[in-house]
Amino acid sequence: MSDGQSIVVVSAHAADFVWRAGGAIALYAAAGYRVRILCLSFGERGESQGAWAEPDMTTARVKEIRRAESTRAAGILGADVRFFDSGDYPLRPTDATIDAMVEELKTLQPACILTHSRLDPYNFDHPVAHTVTLQARVYAQAMGHPAPGPVLGAPPVFLFEPHQPEQCGFVPQVLLDVTPVWERKLEAMRSMQAQGHLVDYYSDLGKRRGSQAVRNGGRKGIRVAEAFERVYPLVVEGLL
Amino acid sequence: MSDGQSIVVVSAHAADFVWRAGGAIALYAAAGYRVRILCLSFGERGESQGAWAEPDMTTARVKEIRRAESTRAAGILGADVRFFDSGDYPLRPTDATIDAMVEELKTLQPACILTHSRLDPYNFDHPVAHTVTLQARVYAQAMGHPAPGPVLGAPPVFLFEPHQPEQCGFVPQVLLDVTPVWERKLEAMRSMQAQGHLVDYYSDLGKRRGSQAVRNGGRKGIRVAEAFERVYPLVVEGLL
Amino acid sequence: MSDGQSIVVVSAHAADFVWRAGGAIALYAAAGYRVRILCLSFGERGESQGAWAEPDMTTARVKEIRRAESTRAAGILGADVRFFDSGDYPLRPTDATIDAMVEELKTLQPACILTHSRLDPYNFDHPVAHTVTLQARVYAQAMGHPAPGPVLGAPPVFLFEPHQPEQCGFVPQVLLDVTPVWERKLEAMRSMQAQGHLVDYYSDLGKRRGSQAVRNGGRKGIRVAEAFERVYPLVVEGLL
Amino acid sequence: MSDGQSIVVVSAHAADFVWRAGGAIALYAAAGYRVRILCLSFGERGESQGAWAEPDMTTARVKEIRRAESTRAAGILGADVRFFDSGDYPLRPTDATIDAMVEELKTLQPACILTHSRLDPYNFDHPVAHTVTLQARVYAQAMGHPAPGPVLGAPPVFLFEPHQPEQCGFVPQVLLDVTPVWERKLEAMRSMQAQGHLVDYYSDLGKRRGSQAVRNGGRKGIRVAEAFERVYPLVVEGLL
Amino acid sequence: MSDGQSIVVVSAHAADFVWRAGGAIALYAAAGYRVRILCLSFGERGESQGAWAEPDMTTARVKEIRRAESTRAAGILGADVRFFDSGDYPLRPTDATIDAMVEELKTLQPACILTHSRLDPYNFDHPVAHTVTLQARVYAQAMGHPAPGPVLGAPPVFLFEPHQPEQCGFVPQVLLDVTPVWERKLEAMRSMQAQGHLVDYYSDLGKRRGSQAVRNGGRKGIRVAEAFERVYPLVVEGLL
Amino acid sequence: MSDGQSIVVVSAHAADFVWRAGGAIALYAAAGYRVRILCLSFGERGESQGAWAEPDMTTARVKEIRRAESTRAAGILGADVRFFDSGDYPLRPTDATIDAMVEELKTLQPACILTHSRLDPYNFDHPVAHTVTLQARVYAQAMGHPAPGPVLGAPPVFLFEPHQPEQCGFVPQVLLDVTPVWERKLEAMRSMQAQGHLVDYYSDLGKRRGSQAVRNGGRKGIRVAEAFERVYPLVVEGLL
Repeated sequence: MSDGQSIVVVSAHAADFVWRAGGAIALYAAAGYRVRILCLSFGERGESQGAWAEPDMTTARVKEIRRAESTRAAGILGADVRFFDSGDYPLRPTDATIDAMVEELKTLQPACILTHSRLDPYNFDHPVAHTVTLQARVYAQAMGHPAPGPVLGAPPVFLFEPHQPEQCGFVPQVLLDVTPVWERKLEAMRSMQAQGHLVDYYSDLGKRRGSQAVRNGGRKGIRVAEAFERVYPLVVEGLL
Repeated sequence: MSDGQSIVVVSAHAADFVWRAGGAIALYAAAGYRVRILCLSFGERGESQGAWAEPDMTTARVKEIRRAESTRAAGILGADVRFFDSGDYPLRPTDATIDAMVEELKTLQPACILTHSRLDPYNFDHPVAHTVTLQARVYAQAMGHPAPGPVLGAPPVFLFEPHQPEQCGFVPQVLLDVTPVWERKLEAMRSMQAQGHLVDYYSDLGKRRGSQAVRNGGRKGIRVAEAFERVYPLVVEGLL
Repeated sequence: MSDGQSIVVVSAHAADFVWRAGGAIALYAAAGYRVRILCLSFGERGESQGAWAEPDMTTARVKEIRRAESTRAAGILGADVRFFDSGDYPLRPTDATIDAMVEELKTLQPACILTHSRLDPYNFDHPVAHTVTLQARVYAQAMGHPAPGPVLGAPPVFLFEPHQPEQCGFVPQVLLDVTPVWERKLEAMRSMQAQGHLVDYYSDLGKRRGSQAVRNGGRKGIRVAEAFERVYPLVVEGLL
Repeated sequence: MSDGQSIVVVSAHAADFVWRAGGAIALYAAAGYRVRILCLSFGERGESQGAWAEPDMTTARVKEIRRAESTRAAGILGADVRFFDSGDYPLRPTDATIDAMVEELKTLQPACILTHSRLDPYNFDHPVAHTVTLQARVYAQAMGHPAPGPVLGAPPVFLFEPHQPEQCGFVPQVLLDVTPVWERKLEAMRSMQAQGHLVDYYSDLGKRRGSQAVRNGGRKGIRVAEAFERVYPLVVEGLL
Repeated sequence: MSDGQSIVVVSAHAADFVWRAGGAIALYAAAGYRVRILCLSFGERGESQGAWAEPDMTTARVKEIRRAESTRAAGILGADVRFFDSGDYPLRPTDATIDAMVEELKTLQPACILTHSRLDPYNFDHPVAHTVTLQARVYAQAMGHPAPGPVLGAPPVFLFEPHQPEQCGFVPQVLLDVTPVWERKLEAMRSMQAQGHLVDYYSDLGKRRGSQAVRNGGRKGIRVAEAFERVYPLVVEGLL
Repeated sequence: MSDGQSIVVVSAHAADFVWRAGGAIALYAAAGYRVRILCLSFGERGESQGAWAEPDMTTARVKEIRRAESTRAAGILGADVRFFDSGDYPLRPTDATIDAMVEELKTLQPACILTHSRLDPYNFDHPVAHTVTLQARVYAQAMGHPAPGPVLGAPPVFLFEPHQPEQCGFVPQVLLDVTPVWERKLEAMRSMQAQGHLVDYYSDLGKRRGSQAVRNGGRKGIRVAEAFERVYPLVVEGLL
């Protein structure tokens, strides 16, 4: 149980955090951390095909649907969400958005930060989310940045596995056993009605990474895992 | 305190383990681990310029000098050494050498393995040591390998920082705080008379990595660190 | 003969498509495809040294000269051009430009897309053209993008060979035999009076890639070829 | 239907070709090609845990079991196998092995060659198979090589997807739709009793690559695919 | 002595040029070159923790302090500075800034240009400075760019060593012996009161690079060096 | 004029040094250096198609033809050659070969060393030559190596441009103006009757690299150049 600690997850669109880090979120929530999701856009253009398939749909209604879905999924995982509505396809965070992210980081002082990978030729919003997250973290460390709150330390940053990892130069450095919270992630994924076809894809991926976790030295009971890449070196007091 | 556990360090030459992993070795020895060094050669050609500067030197005597130095340094660090005498410049491990390494791994069941980096255009023995170490680890995992002992699990492998890391494609993934055992590493380095000029170089490197460890989120009291690269993903039950 | 099919070529400047993809364009035009060139700028600053060498030249006149040259070359190759006039050095496509590109793609439903490489330290407009092309393609696939027309499938993207490929991280994945249309490409290149010195350079390059095509298994009669890199995996029903 | 044509598959161990290229093999066999598998070892040490779990097992019996399994699986896929018995863990092809491979290539004149990836830190026999395959292909092209038969042309080489692709630097360049022959691959995989636990892993992988094939522009009906990397550029007479 | 020649150094913040290129600057100044520093921002947010530690500090006063420090350090090294005040965290050069840089380059016709590395996950202003510098250089080469002055040739570009080079993909290609001017660099570093803690770090780095310079073939007397990476190939009339 | 200085060129086969470094060799010979070529094999299998096309050819006669051609070409360039006859396809240097190379280096104390690139999927003898050259250089630096002669310093190593550079990961770092000796290189290339078809290919390459040399800042009069990659950093006393 972690009293008063938090982690921050920056998600380009309303659903990314569910598929890519739902297990990590549920683990930390279950361990007593506050998990704060900064959701940069509703994914109203790019990942709402389910909603757009309905007649007479409008952008405003798609956003509402996505907000509701995303909030519900976050709730299932044990997290809360702040929506920035910075648009998608393209995602365009303003200086004000970045300043607000800096303020979140200085206020929350998260123990770690999760966000998207550096490259993704299938989705150009993901690298944008990556970049503004790393920028906000660095700005929050600076004595001279005007956002309120104490300066941030150097929390580690973990990058989500993208949809087609090899095409994005993503190499798993960390395999996180999410077996204990898998039912919760599954429930959260199923609650995302607009992209229901992805539940199977990410369930299979969870098994794949779980199988690899066992092969890379994890305990035999691991059934599902999530893969992450680190941006900065891991600082340790022992190698094991 | 770790009862009955061990780590294995594979060193191409008689002194490599001192400069590159002396801190890690001292930390694990101090924590109660058995630290077993597999020293593939005495470095009689390539890293014994001090010895060769003496008159009437012979290869046999150089080997004796190096064996004594290496044994003494290992003792200071709290480790024991097995020498394979496989030659240097070039290092040529035979099948028998690799089989003996497999047997060591199956017998010791080490919690982790340390060795050289994958590339080094300044020293071609280092990649050879890297390769045979990874091979021995994989062979030791196989049901059908004839070496005695139970099959090995999947202990993580950490790679030493080479002398000129950028030219070797080495990127630090782990910064190990070795502040608590620094005096011990310093003593071990100073005991290596044949290469005395490297003490300053590796002391400066220790400070450099220590400073970076603090900057990457380590505790403020870190003064010296060692950098390692991992070969396989880290399997964890939590990101922190 | 391909009834009603098309390909789209996105060219940063008025002449890029001639040097880098003139053979591919002529091949597809000859095969009955509509070839549509989206020319993002006239290259008025960066590739019009011939025009600027004349006395009393103005930017407006340079643009006219380049438009005429580019249109003529496209005509020789069998393509039509749309000019966006988004400036060069720097090239600055606006949101409106990208939206117009999305609309072109949704309307044309091209069978493939050609554009510049991802990196080019000799010309920063080329990576900009690369990025907006991939973005427009991804946006055109999204149900929620407001541009008119049916959503786009997933046409393959081929990247032009840059002027100094090794410095741009360009690795040829596809060598296209352009021997049957070489005279046409040569005529188009020669029609680009503002950059006449490049005809020899790209003729030699064509021979070089042709020679390599033969060596990589192409038919013996290949004399000239163009090299391309792919962004996404090739999906096939047979390997041959 | 391809009269008299062939493809060659070089497999480090008795089962590799089933998991990694079973679909490609079945497709080519079904299309009338002769598929010739050069199996460099029986995998008696490294991939025969099922056999070794039985009491009183010997290396000779493991090899027989593996030979039988491998022959049966090849038969299901429509291929024939030649076994070289060059050992595993480590795989050690001799000059005579390579010469025999050269002779196979000169005799068969295959339309393409399939083998392992260049790197694999989980299995050092795979890169060995990769290297000797590329060497044999190059030697077979040389006028002066003494192996009988006409010199080889330049058939393309496709690399299998390794077990943990991101750790091996493997990037899929080709996604082959194997939906039409999936039942056959499944039957072949199930016939490999010594490694039964891999059937699920490679079935899930097939679905994963199939899903990606659709997303990368393949026909909607693709359900399963195999990924390959190419060693040499693809030479074409059209991009589509 | 070089009559009328110059070099240009583009520094993201007020102090970068001191730590990273102080030796190169002093060498060229001592050789009679004009060394012109284009300082894009005062580093008022990101590298002024010393100043901000004082009570009642304001951004305007921090800038003044930094301007004074930077000017003094440049003077010690023998260079002059132009400040652009384009902000930091984030650095945001406008088109006018880039045009002014183009004009500087066309006016000065520098023999070489020094700036930051391409990537730096610890400081996102550094890659911005890198990019605008390369852009300004390319624009200055174009006949059609409106900035006054003759077009620029193709001066080589050297990239500074970043603070944690391995994390930035930085590989030293050039080791510059700065032993003759080391006292001057040390004096300049010590004059930067706002970041006094870095003097030791960069002194140790100087020794480290000096030691490597000797090992890579430099004269035995080299004690301190600076590392640089080149962007473009070196053109020579002899290899030595 | 350089009295008593030398350079060493290690060539896998009898002709490699002509195509890939003929200009560099002629330049150094003309400047008074002794240029010593260590030719590891005659290329009797892999690059003697001209000889093998004659009736009743034998390996012994092919070697004689190649030795004569290679000696003649070296003479035209102003160099002398030592042949090791270590075989080709595969090239297999023995320990005695490497020891002889070490002795050459210790005796000659060359100012620089030229050899093949690290990777070449079209020719596996080239990386072998690369590796043994770097090994011999490192061994020659060791106090304890038994080969006669004083230890070697740290001469720079330059790598030849391979036939298809992008496929070999080759990036030109140095463009050497060989305009003054081009006629001599051309004469040497033309004297290699067994591979006459390559004269055009390498003449075009020379022009291509020459054109790039001008574009990268070389003098306007450069017409032909050779590209090289460096293995180790360049140590300098000035950047220009």
